[in-house]
Amino acid sequence: MTELLLRNVRPMGGAAADVLVLGGRIAKGAAPDGIATVDGAGALLLPGFVEGHTHLDKTTFHQPDWLVNEVGPRIIDKIDTEREWRARTGHDAGAASLAMARAFLAQGTTRIRSHVDVDTSGGTRHVEGVLRTREAMAGLQDIQIVAFPQSGILARQGTESLLDAALAMGADIVGGLDPCAIERDPVKHLNIVFGLAERHGKPVDIHLHEPGAMGAFSLELILERTRALAMQGKVVVSHAFCLGDITERERDALLAQMAELGVGIATTAPASRPVPLVAPCRAAGVTIFGGNDGIRDTWTPYGSPDMLERAMLIGLRNNLRRDDEIALAFDCVSDAGAAGCGFAGHGLAPGARADLVLVEARSLAEAVVARPPRRLVVSGGRIVARDGILVA
Amino acid sequence: MTELLLRNVRPMGGAAADVLVLGGRIAKGAAPDGIATVDGAGALLLPGFVEGHTHLDKTTFHQPDWLVNEVGPRIIDKIDTEREWRARTGHDAGAASLAMARAFLAQGTTRIRSHVDVDTSGGTRHVEGVLRTREAMAGLQDIQIVAFPQSGILARQGTESLLDAALAMGADIVGGLDPCAIERDPVKHLNIVFGLAERHGKPVDIHLHEPGAMGAFSLELILERTRALAMQGKVVVSHAFCLGDITERERDALLAQMAELGVGIATTAPASRPVPLVAPCRAAGVTIFGGNDGIRDTWTPYGSPDMLERAMLIGLRNNLRRDDEIALAFDCVSDAGAAGCGFAGHGLAPGARADLVLVEARSLAEAVVARPPRRLVVSGGRIVARDGILVA
Repeated sequence: MTELLLRNVRPMGGAAADVLVLGGRIAKGAAPDGIATVDGAGALLLPGFVEGHTHLDKTTFHQPDWLVNEVGPRIIDKIDTEREWRARTGHDAGAASLAMARAFLAQGTTRIRSHVDVDTSGGTRHVEGVLRTREAMAGLQDIQIVAFPQSGILARQGTESLLDAALAMGADIVGGLDPCAIERDPVKHLNIVFGLAERHGKPVDIHLHEPGAMGAFSLELILERTRALAMQGKVVVSHAFCLGDITERERDALLAQMAELGVGIATTAPASRPVPLVAPCRAAGVTIFGGNDGIRDTWTPYGSPDMLERAMLIGLRNNLRRDDEIALAFDCVSDAGAAGCGFAGHGLAPGARADLVLVEARSLAEAVVARPPRRLVVSGGRIVARDGILVA
Repeated sequence: MTELLLRNVRPMGGAAADVLVLGGRIAKGAAPDGIATVDGAGALLLPGFVEGHTHLDKTTFHQPDWLVNEVGPRIIDKIDTEREWRARTGHDAGAASLAMARAFLAQGTTRIRSHVDVDTSGGTRHVEGVLRTREAMAGLQDIQIVAFPQSGILARQGTESLLDAALAMGADIVGGLDPCAIERDPVKHLNIVFGLAERHGKPVDIHLHEPGAMGAFSLELILERTRALAMQGKVVVSHAFCLGDITERERDALLAQMAELGVGIATTAPASRPVPLVAPCRAAGVTIFGGNDGIRDTWTPYGSPDMLERAMLIGLRNNLRRDDEIALAFDCVSDAGAAGCGFAGHGLAPGARADLVLVEARSLAEAVVARPPRRLVVSGGRIVARDGILVA
């Protein structure tokens, strides 16, 4: 069923209306006779959510045993612990990602960008697992795969050709990682990342945890390459923590360049460290959007497949309290997420893909702060979940 | 029913055990014949949660219409907006606090410290409303009332005698507010607050939002008075944001004094500004505990009567990821909250008041990060809620 009439729903919390779906897209005009109809009873209608930065392959979400986290404090502790844990347990990225993707869909997320580890220990097998999940979810949920060198490219010989293979087998985006702090040779690392992007004609998404001046330096190198290779609109910097702990003048100079080059920012809005803030990014014309990062994995037990919760955390991190401000937090998991990741046809306008979520809420702000159960989730015009449970 | 046997429950996520309740308290020994029995089916058993800093009187939680937040950016905008909104709408603190207290109980919170506004516009009527709620909840939930001069004492003549009246009619604790930034005369403000405390023989809890050196100065004045009046263990500083943005050496010197004087810290762990961190406070021997602050009021639409969510937010703010660290985040809404507020008989040891919460979780850390539904809530040995719904 990709024809549907939603009666008495309130798009984005506005006035009640009927919303027509034809051929899997939002349509204008009169509903055909006999079309399947849902009574929205005045519920809030939102577009399907966008998860802009997660790691479907890493999660233990589907596993019967709780993973006790005893990892050390440094990033390298977490990287090494995870790689060794995966090798030891034979962690199945296919099963993990499928369980996680389905949980996201049940909560209204129809578009996901997932970073997926590629390293000399696991090779491309995690990417292969998530490719199977993408295939299984085709038509229900769009999944972008970033071939992500979590353990670095330079320290582990053979990683570059594994990334090359991952891109050849269907990964959509070239990943990268802290060119100075982890890779210790920013030029070499970024030349490999952008070289792979050029060779495969694919975009780039780089994890940049580096703080302050070091992170700003790496960001400059990324922007130089974006300009040199004419990759406007094809580059995302994930985290970009440095933009939260340099001066406002330095930050704004970088944001101006990012806006000009169409370089987006994926943020998880962590509460415990400086982050790029939503307001100055938007004011500069930079697309900033949201994601969980990992969920229930060896890095962190936190996170949720509920993107309204991520919007809430973005709102809390940015001190967005007014209703008009909370709408910006929501935008990070909606329009801005779609724009930043390049998911076409997002939204509630006629012609958009009919990815829709119904919740009981009086306003958009209430949907974000209270995160009510998903009464209905529609993907491409098909009802895929009711009351948080996937339908067959 | 204040006799109860909980079979097959896992206290704090440990090994399965039976927990006996006699006379409303956790007991040792054999269960009497014919005692009412609950099959815990291996669920996690936690002590009733403690909300250490909220404003039951302010909430719109119970109101049919969503309150659109359009307030200005300064603290004084929020104070003035709220006072005027209350006067205009006749906001009923009794109904508001009762709805909120019941929502807290349904989610497992059996002890609450609520600041309640006292000002020349509302007089003591908000305190009277929350006193009615305390009466209605007696035996089910302990509510402490802080007589809180939200609009200041010095700028509004008559506030001191209203605070005096509120304490005389049953408020438990003397409140105070930003002695420099709002009150503009720290000595005069604190002398009034501590004077009221001395006169009524009641503890003090002061909202200290002031940042950096100013906040540290106000904190020093509070500590001087605590010492001079021998109020060891009777003073809480709420927020204490300054402890998050002075040097570690300055912070640790203040924490050492606070530990010596038994001055606790109530934190909401906001994500958007510097805060006192849990680890250095605990290392110094300072009791730090958690609360929501306001929930769905004119200040903020955020917050939740679910204290596991507050524990999660404390964990996120403090970057507590390991299971042993997440236990500290939970402690902020449990033992530390009871110690900081002075609620006696908290916990799961024999002799403690039988305030108990059952949730489906494999570990304490999972209870915090996943915040599962409350299968059962027991207060003073009585079953008061099942599956998040209060029973008659």
